[in-house]
Amino acid sequence: MTEFAHYRPGEYASEHIRITPTKLADGRQFFYVDDDPDYVSGKKTRQLTDPRKLANRFEPGIDGEGNPIPVQAPQMRRDPLTGDWIPMATARMNRPITAGPGATASGNPLAARKPGNPYQDGEIPDTDYNVVVFENRFPSMNRLPGQDDAVTYVDGNPLWQQRPAAGRCEVVCFDPGETSLPADLPVFRLRTVVEAWAFRTAEISAIEGIEQIFPFENHGQEIGVSLAHPHGQIYCYPFIAPRLEQELRQTQEYHERTGGNLLRDILQGELEAEQRIIMRNSTWIAYVPAAARWPLEVHLQPVRGGVLTLDQLTDDERWGLAYMYSALLKRGNAFFDRGDGQGMDLPYIAAWHQAPVRDPRRINYSLNLQFFSFRRAANKIKYLAGSESGMAAWISDTTPEKIASRFRALGPVDIED
Amino acid sequence: MTEFAHYRPGEYASEHIRITPTKLADGRQFFYVDDDPDYVSGKKTRQLTDPRKLANRFEPGIDGEGNPIPVQAPQMRRDPLTGDWIPMATARMNRPITAGPGATASGNPLAARKPGNPYQDGEIPDTDYNVVVFENRFPSMNRLPGQDDAVTYVDGNPLWQQRPAAGRCEVVCFDPGETSLPADLPVFRLRTVVEAWAFRTAEISAIEGIEQIFPFENHGQEIGVSLAHPHGQIYCYPFIAPRLEQELRQTQEYHERTGGNLLRDILQGELEAEQRIIMRNSTWIAYVPAAARWPLEVHLQPVRGGVLTLDQLTDDERWGLAYMYSALLKRGNAFFDRGDGQGMDLPYIAAWHQAPVRDPRRINYSLNLQFFSFRRAANKIKYLAGSESGMAAWISDTTPEKIASRFRALGPVDIED
Repeated sequence: MTEFAHYRPGEYASEHIRITPTKLADGRQFFYVDDDPDYVSGKKTRQLTDPRKLANRFEPGIDGEGNPIPVQAPQMRRDPLTGDWIPMATARMNRPITAGPGATASGNPLAARKPGNPYQDGEIPDTDYNVVVFENRFPSMNRLPGQDDAVTYVDGNPLWQQRPAAGRCEVVCFDPGETSLPADLPVFRLRTVVEAWAFRTAEISAIEGIEQIFPFENHGQEIGVSLAHPHGQIYCYPFIAPRLEQELRQTQEYHERTGGNLLRDILQGELEAEQRIIMRNSTWIAYVPAAARWPLEVHLQPVRGGVLTLDQLTDDERWGLAYMYSALLKRGNAFFDRGDGQGMDLPYIAAWHQAPVRDPRRINYSLNLQFFSFRRAANKIKYLAGSESGMAAWISDTTPEKIASRFRALGPVDIED
Repeated sequence: MTEFAHYRPGEYASEHIRITPTKLADGRQFFYVDDDPDYVSGKKTRQLTDPRKLANRFEPGIDGEGNPIPVQAPQMRRDPLTGDWIPMATARMNRPITAGPGATASGNPLAARKPGNPYQDGEIPDTDYNVVVFENRFPSMNRLPGQDDAVTYVDGNPLWQQRPAAGRCEVVCFDPGETSLPADLPVFRLRTVVEAWAFRTAEISAIEGIEQIFPFENHGQEIGVSLAHPHGQIYCYPFIAPRLEQELRQTQEYHERTGGNLLRDILQGELEAEQRIIMRNSTWIAYVPAAARWPLEVHLQPVRGGVLTLDQLTDDERWGLAYMYSALLKRGNAFFDRGDGQGMDLPYIAAWHQAPVRDPRRINYSLNLQFFSFRRAANKIKYLAGSESGMAAWISDTTPEKIASRFRALGPVDIED
């Protein structure tokens, strides 16, 4: 078992992985995360130069039709009624580039560059890859060089604080296959995705002003995903997101009251109750939480306590997670029977809850994955209507025990690692 | 101007409205709220007897096919990680009645009973109506007579509190027209809807254990509404919903820090800034909040301060609200231009934020309506994906000023009342 105290991009991240950094034509950071032995050993090297001509995002530019391209400097405002910060990605909305000659909208920007076509407007400089991670071209949060993060007031009213949405948005491509499903990827490739999440968490934690690093995956047209290419995102918020804040309040209150770690005690409770445990291997445990709010919901925690963030996972834990994530996606696709005994491509959101970067309450939190679906039957979607969207009050039409029972019918609780 | 200190069902609620109570065949409460002068004057009376044979909801029954009908006693569990209560309406999910001979699924249960057909399985005993409000037949929250509300523990673990979801769910039918849009209803009918909201708020506040009364309207197939019939709902939670709790925390903290009322000071700020005010009459003001999170969002507050709940509105304020609600819905439908100069049937959620029933922080809150849409363009929906659904972190693609500017292009700021 190897601990990863730090990453060494350009060298080996582990004996199985090599990380190769480069920059895209507009200055964005880009990383190859390779598991192919020829790239890991250094026998083959990656294409590092992005052949495109892209305007510098940090300077106002002109697109191919002579229209000005605004500087991407999204602002955010604090809602005084909730205390939430709301990033307003207006440059993103106005970007003329979506319809101009430089548009990426008609192609697949996550595809590898086609051989012999150096000017294809994709984001990947090389003609093949394993996993890549890079800064989003049209981010909803972004830090300008030398930007002043000071709070100003909207209309001069101190009720309405505004400051730059100085976060970061990254894209993680899971595989060069444009139409493959994450559920069908080999475990070694998912393990490389885990490495990308962990590597980015470690590096981004050092960036000034980032308070929370949120790797997640949106999957399925039902939730608005337009690119079939298997990918995820990493939102790095310059604040603690409301849901994590709510969890931190609970975990901290619990710690002060009992001295315990709430997430670990929940896991212990699930292990003792046993009926909602749906998978386990030597490093991870998957359970339907006793108060699940979604029609399909599974949480994952490492067996080992004290893990705050993905980069603290050991090599064994990364492999164990890849096996469990693969099994979870496969069973998720089989969960809703269409009546023909066949499963479906389950729409899902996989949300990594990591300890916040700087908040001192972080030490009483624990890393966990919250995986859930809007689907509530083979032909039905749970809509977030008045109670959920308006009052954040979830109503479940099922029970955690029923969800767990269905999962346990789909495969053994003890899985590989 | 008449203050409504209390309601007198069976008599006049105002000179314009008469409320007539009855009970449906299974014991549920049902109210006609009439504006037709012949009903208001008592010249004509309402059909009070529900001709159906329905099983008592509070006793286990047998449906037409011999299957047991479970008692509707939804439970709720407290999620220890967030502190939220999650009602689990499992009897609702399992109800055999949806497919049996007593099914309402194929008809429109909100239609008036057809003349000469006393056994049609609709919810309205009479052959016409103005506005009606009644208990939901398949509620996600419900109180059994004599029910013990004591907290128990799931699997004996004190981390997982469980108790009856002893709330209440009511349905408000806005009009007998089965396909009319709320935006097209006459103002006097919307005024009667306001009366129904106010009346129910007043009565339900007296029910033991109800902590929050939430009248809302989900409109549009895009958010899963399957009945075209114009209607809304009233969820009465046996807890304070997470969103209102968040607002109460902010309003209370603001009061303790400044002595002020946050919602009234926000309104004052909007009046001074002026640019996000989109409508006003002598009793109500509509504005796009300075930190709006939805692609279309409008808040309404009464001009008069000190209003905590809908039943505290005066007669003039009820009329003023009806005028403004009508104008808001019409302008909402015109907001997104399909390119042909025609509007569309806007999907929206209209959420009444009332002061909680019992929590002492209620006095520093103020009644407000939060109206918003998932639609972000004529052909685009905002999906609640990873950041919103997983982290409750909203990202806006527009600005409040742009939303307000579009609304102000659709009609004058000063409107009727």
